[in-house]
Amino acid sequence: MTRTIDLNSDLGEGFGPYRIADDESLLDIISSANLACGGHAGDPNVMYETSAAALQRGVIIGAHIGYPDREGFGRRALKMSNRELELMTIAQLGTLSAIASHAGHRLTHANFHGALGNLSFVDQDVARTLIQAVKTFDPNLIFVGLPHTQAYFEAERAGLRVVRSFLADRGYLPNGVLAARGIEGALVKDPEEVRQRLERVLLEGVVEAVDGSIVDMPIDSVLIHSDTPGAISLAKTIRDTVLAAGVTVRPFTS
Amino acid sequence: MTRTIDLNSDLGEGFGPYRIADDESLLDIISSANLACGGHAGDPNVMYETSAAALQRGVIIGAHIGYPDREGFGRRALKMSNRELELMTIAQLGTLSAIASHAGHRLTHANFHGALGNLSFVDQDVARTLIQAVKTFDPNLIFVGLPHTQAYFEAERAGLRVVRSFLADRGYLPNGVLAARGIEGALVKDPEEVRQRLERVLLEGVVEAVDGSIVDMPIDSVLIHSDTPGAISLAKTIRDTVLAAGVTVRPFTS
Amino acid sequence: MTRTIDLNSDLGEGFGPYRIADDESLLDIISSANLACGGHAGDPNVMYETSAAALQRGVIIGAHIGYPDREGFGRRALKMSNRELELMTIAQLGTLSAIASHAGHRLTHANFHGALGNLSFVDQDVARTLIQAVKTFDPNLIFVGLPHTQAYFEAERAGLRVVRSFLADRGYLPNGVLAARGIEGALVKDPEEVRQRLERVLLEGVVEAVDGSIVDMPIDSVLIHSDTPGAISLAKTIRDTVLAAGVTVRPFTS
Amino acid sequence: MTRTIDLNSDLGEGFGPYRIADDESLLDIISSANLACGGHAGDPNVMYETSAAALQRGVIIGAHIGYPDREGFGRRALKMSNRELELMTIAQLGTLSAIASHAGHRLTHANFHGALGNLSFVDQDVARTLIQAVKTFDPNLIFVGLPHTQAYFEAERAGLRVVRSFLADRGYLPNGVLAARGIEGALVKDPEEVRQRLERVLLEGVVEAVDGSIVDMPIDSVLIHSDTPGAISLAKTIRDTVLAAGVTVRPFTS
Repeated sequence: MTRTIDLNSDLGEGFGPYRIADDESLLDIISSANLACGGHAGDPNVMYETSAAALQRGVIIGAHIGYPDREGFGRRALKMSNRELELMTIAQLGTLSAIASHAGHRLTHANFHGALGNLSFVDQDVARTLIQAVKTFDPNLIFVGLPHTQAYFEAERAGLRVVRSFLADRGYLPNGVLAARGIEGALVKDPEEVRQRLERVLLEGVVEAVDGSIVDMPIDSVLIHSDTPGAISLAKTIRDTVLAAGVTVRPFTS
Repeated sequence: MTRTIDLNSDLGEGFGPYRIADDESLLDIISSANLACGGHAGDPNVMYETSAAALQRGVIIGAHIGYPDREGFGRRALKMSNRELELMTIAQLGTLSAIASHAGHRLTHANFHGALGNLSFVDQDVARTLIQAVKTFDPNLIFVGLPHTQAYFEAERAGLRVVRSFLADRGYLPNGVLAARGIEGALVKDPEEVRQRLERVLLEGVVEAVDGSIVDMPIDSVLIHSDTPGAISLAKTIRDTVLAAGVTVRPFTS
Repeated sequence: MTRTIDLNSDLGEGFGPYRIADDESLLDIISSANLACGGHAGDPNVMYETSAAALQRGVIIGAHIGYPDREGFGRRALKMSNRELELMTIAQLGTLSAIASHAGHRLTHANFHGALGNLSFVDQDVARTLIQAVKTFDPNLIFVGLPHTQAYFEAERAGLRVVRSFLADRGYLPNGVLAARGIEGALVKDPEEVRQRLERVLLEGVVEAVDGSIVDMPIDSVLIHSDTPGAISLAKTIRDTVLAAGVTVRPFTS
Repeated sequence: MTRTIDLNSDLGEGFGPYRIADDESLLDIISSANLACGGHAGDPNVMYETSAAALQRGVIIGAHIGYPDREGFGRRALKMSNRELELMTIAQLGTLSAIASHAGHRLTHANFHGALGNLSFVDQDVARTLIQAVKTFDPNLIFVGLPHTQAYFEAERAGLRVVRSFLADRGYLPNGVLAARGIEGALVKDPEEVRQRLERVLLEGVVEAVDGSIVDMPIDSVLIHSDTPGAISLAKTIRDTVLAAGVTVRPFTS
């Protein structure tokens, strides 16, 4: 049985006067945060504020690397060369790391946002490029990701420590892979069902796949969506479910 | 008499397909380069290429921090709060440092570009904010600047090592301060006159001010403009003048 | 006594996934909207959506021209030449006009946002440059602004139709000029006081200045702040006050 | 035999201090210019200068619409929805049209740049979306493009006037389609060969395809690359070849 679990969420998504999520509320719920680093979102002020607020709550932080497309919020695929992706990753890590350090915090992990994340699931070359860039920047960075994806395989291959993230509000295929959005059962919208799925993963280490089969699902962290409607409410449900199951919320570095 | 001198220039000013200067040629002439770090110019590719090319020639590199205004090339004053300036400086240093490190090089110094540089000459609060940000990022960074400016004073006050940069193609006031562009004699356009002024600074340690008086002018480096018409030709003249005076061109860290 | 009045507000401030204000709610309250046109805010999607939504409610639209500084939201002064300001104004008008036209709507007016607006109050050269650019683009555009400002004078001088905008939640000097934020009484925070001031302006045509004197204040429109805390609530108070005074809310073009 | 021909080129590619091509020289050679409109390149100053300079030489101008990706210069595919493409096209046309009009000039045509252009060759939905947006903005705009592409078909279908552009320095397939860059013979690098191919197209109306077959190639304009090495020299060769063949260079609107 799982005794401790990490709760992670994507924060620091904003810049200037704009904010996507209620980061303050989420920081009271989660134990690790993935921060935008100036690509799809994030300016120096937002990076600093979010780093400082996370530090204050004992929330660890990582880099959430995304395409340099603020208008599209990193959700539109952009055909960059591997070289461009490599240097972009280094640049975003360097920027956020410097700001976090200035706030007294430090980066423990990294992962990939939006359309870049999606590409890193399926494109091995891209996945390797991104992971190698992360490792080059700091080989002690932990990769937080989805098992059975190219990014996850490459992180393991590169010798990075990996953290297995689970989405309680998404369906899974029998092989443990996340079900694509088109597939029936890909989105779990009923909070009670989310609660039950999470409980089962925590207590039994399994999830019911979209075809009804039972799949082994060892996890280290639960991803809490920060920007969906009702995000804070669902986040609280997830945290409460974890605590009710007798599991302690704790950063994966503890 | 001066035995060695540094020659510095502003490089890496470009991004995507754009380039301002002939960086390759300049790197064969200078010994230290101030690189744009993503504010007024500079993308990850340009930062990497320039860092790598500098390393290859034994040219040291520093951060040339500028306003985040690519369209205005950092030449338009932008009213940022001290807090914004501080975090912007940290962010630019972090970005360039990470890229430079990835290229095998490392930052030795910092200074300020364009309208931000001009403001740092005269505004003590801004100067202190910028210098403190540089020191916070890395107290071993050297400040390369103009004596008699607020930025220079603050760098000294902060305990940063300072390098005195000289502009051979600009006029000086009797007190050793650069003459503003409006003042007669502020721009020295004749290459032969530039040559003579540089020679005198190197051999006698003095410059003739715009009023004809002779001013003490101890220097550590000569700034070579990278983007003026005939820049490469004047750069060669400056280097040749230095060598003809029996002075060795060498980075100020040597 | 005033029989009809316009209510105007700044909308379309956002881009990509970001929005500043609750534009939908405001469009049910106001009669004219000033839309961001891609400078400080506004992308093609936001411009289109807001234009279309305004059209649906019979709300007229104008261009809210601002500095090209999304990160600073047009609130940071940026030193642009008059030439740059002129061409920027034309470009923003052209962009918004084309999008509005595509949405079936059309521009009736223009004014200036944030730091640019503030500069246009006091700098005659800038005011003239901006107003001339508006007139060049379309001499039938109406200027919506604050009396006693340089922009207002220049609009009158240029022969543009002018609309006098009133801020019910701001203090005024005895000469009818808006009190700067530092001055005591510059901000009217009590909604009941806002209500009373608005009522008095509508019924008596006067406002009590920060020094207690009574000032003539003929107005054509009331500016409703869209992005302050409690904006929608105050907006409703303003609209209710207008209606309770027996005044009809109607675009200034009716 | 062809009696008059248009020479077109992509100009106005730059912003702030940056310029890609020697637009001044090209304007003395060509008869129509495709101007960047703020997406992949082009700011209000550059748009104005280029429009004014074109007007002075009797060179007609059109909109060269590209992805909003300055750093990638519009050469990286960006996954935008058809809706986003539609509104982006309207916005770019509106911006450039306003600036051109301010310079005393007017838009006569439109086409698509870089990765967007490439997509418009092969993706019918995208092609239709782009062409419909152009037509919505102004049904009198002429489409300048490559025959046998989806964009060309859609322009014809939409009832736009079409102008057939020819690339003298590129190979063609037996069916008249441009040979992709990977294919042998896709790039014609020898200026003398370029000259001969152009001469043959002008005099005989045919081109030799990459497989040696002879293909009918009726043309209205020749595209002169503005940003390749030796661009001006090749441009002069093309113009001289046209004149030597007894053909007059004239905008396609004449």
